[in-house]
Amino acid sequence: MNEPNLKPGERLDGLPSQAVTIIQNPDMFAYSLDAVLLAYFANPNKKGRGLSVDLGAGTGAVGLFYAKKVPGQVQLVEIQEDLAKMAKRSVALNEMEDRVSVIHSDMQAVFDQIKPGSVDTVLCNPPYFPVKETTKQNVDEHYQIARHEVAIDLPKLAQTANKLLKNKGKFFLVHRPERLADIFAALTARGLQVKHVQFVYGKSDREANMVLVEAIKQGRPGGVRVLPPIVAYTKDNQYTKQVQNILYGAPWTLES
Amino acid sequence: MNEPNLKPGERLDGLPSQAVTIIQNPDMFAYSLDAVLLAYFANPNKKGRGLSVDLGAGTGAVGLFYAKKVPGQVQLVEIQEDLAKMAKRSVALNEMEDRVSVIHSDMQAVFDQIKPGSVDTVLCNPPYFPVKETTKQNVDEHYQIARHEVAIDLPKLAQTANKLLKNKGKFFLVHRPERLADIFAALTARGLQVKHVQFVYGKSDREANMVLVEAIKQGRPGGVRVLPPIVAYTKDNQYTKQVQNILYGAPWTLES
Repeated sequence: MNEPNLKPGERLDGLPSQAVTIIQNPDMFAYSLDAVLLAYFANPNKKGRGLSVDLGAGTGAVGLFYAKKVPGQVQLVEIQEDLAKMAKRSVALNEMEDRVSVIHSDMQAVFDQIKPGSVDTVLCNPPYFPVKETTKQNVDEHYQIARHEVAIDLPKLAQTANKLLKNKGKFFLVHRPERLADIFAALTARGLQVKHVQFVYGKSDREANMVLVEAIKQGRPGGVRVLPPIVAYTKDNQYTKQVQNILYGAPWTLES
Repeated sequence: MNEPNLKPGERLDGLPSQAVTIIQNPDMFAYSLDAVLLAYFANPNKKGRGLSVDLGAGTGAVGLFYAKKVPGQVQLVEIQEDLAKMAKRSVALNEMEDRVSVIHSDMQAVFDQIKPGSVDTVLCNPPYFPVKETTKQNVDEHYQIARHEVAIDLPKLAQTANKLLKNKGKFFLVHRPERLADIFAALTARGLQVKHVQFVYGKSDREANMVLVEAIKQGRPGGVRVLPPIVAYTKDNQYTKQVQNILYGAPWTLES
């Protein structure tokens, strides 16, 4: 690992299983379990040899965790310049410049730099919350853009992913279960067929607080598979063995 | 309980928690865990004092299990005459004729007998499988109609449920997860907003094999809640405590 070059307010967060370290600034944005599980969940075509794009990459957590399990190129697209710069420094820190690059761009304007129909895999950990009149306008802009559908909403995201992907290319998304109807509607309307869904439950007796979705461009309609439940915490508020293994266990491998 | 009057091939199946006994003939159709969980899942408005209708009632399992936890009227609609007759005998056997009635009808033709917009709660354990050219045509007709979308498909079912229901009335459905995209599309297109979803996993490390859905007529879009996972079996192939409790525990109560 290269020497970290931290700025005021920054810290290093590591994912031991993938041997990746991410530069973060909690005042601006910090990744959480969502990012780890999205990267873990993503199961690309062609054993990951194709091109993958992480839309709305933030500090690069999803893309870097994912890049460790695939041999192909990974491009991180981030609209916020200071987050894109941090992601670039994390790429260097992990010595992954040969395969991982960072594009500072609005994801809808990325087609100057990534050719439509050229991407095998799109990943996205998007803003979860619709913009409402009640949304506080005076909160930190970084969190605002990362959490609320200010810069991108589900229909536009689905359209962008669809335009980037090759036919039969895969789109991997993490979102909130309360948006499930919106997710199905937005993806289906743009020819992205939901094929796998996996729910993450905070505890075994709690409602799901996260959903992982895999959709295929021009996939055959129907045939959704709901993968085994992921339960995050035990009754004693410890990570379950299942999640401990994802965070601290052996490096992830691709399903064959 | 009245004296059972069994015909050749028939047997009695009981649900201890609800103290209900159902006359079944496994050669024609037999209910399974799906029916029990749908009845358990259904959480009607007005503490269950309104009118409830079970569409495609089969031998009456869903409707009778459910009727034990609500004080209101329950009408069972079944297209197959011999199943409808069996359901009627089960109603009598359980001495529930004062609140539970059986209508022998195609569910789409039921509006002669049930006024549109008059129903508080619709329940349905529909046929799960689309009709395909490869569907065997020589299998038993009872199973064929119960399992394949011969007499009713999801769009027609959603339309029928919507027409029966009052505004804000609830539709409870059990189905297969592979139809999840179709379910969201069919319900949403007919103004039924999915509000609660609950997945049933055969084992804790298996894919979901059942999904329970609650939709509200003219409900506000968005805000899907995914309830805690139901896991049916332990690693040793025994019912989990969770399911044992539903089958053999205390009588079910309505959430307040």
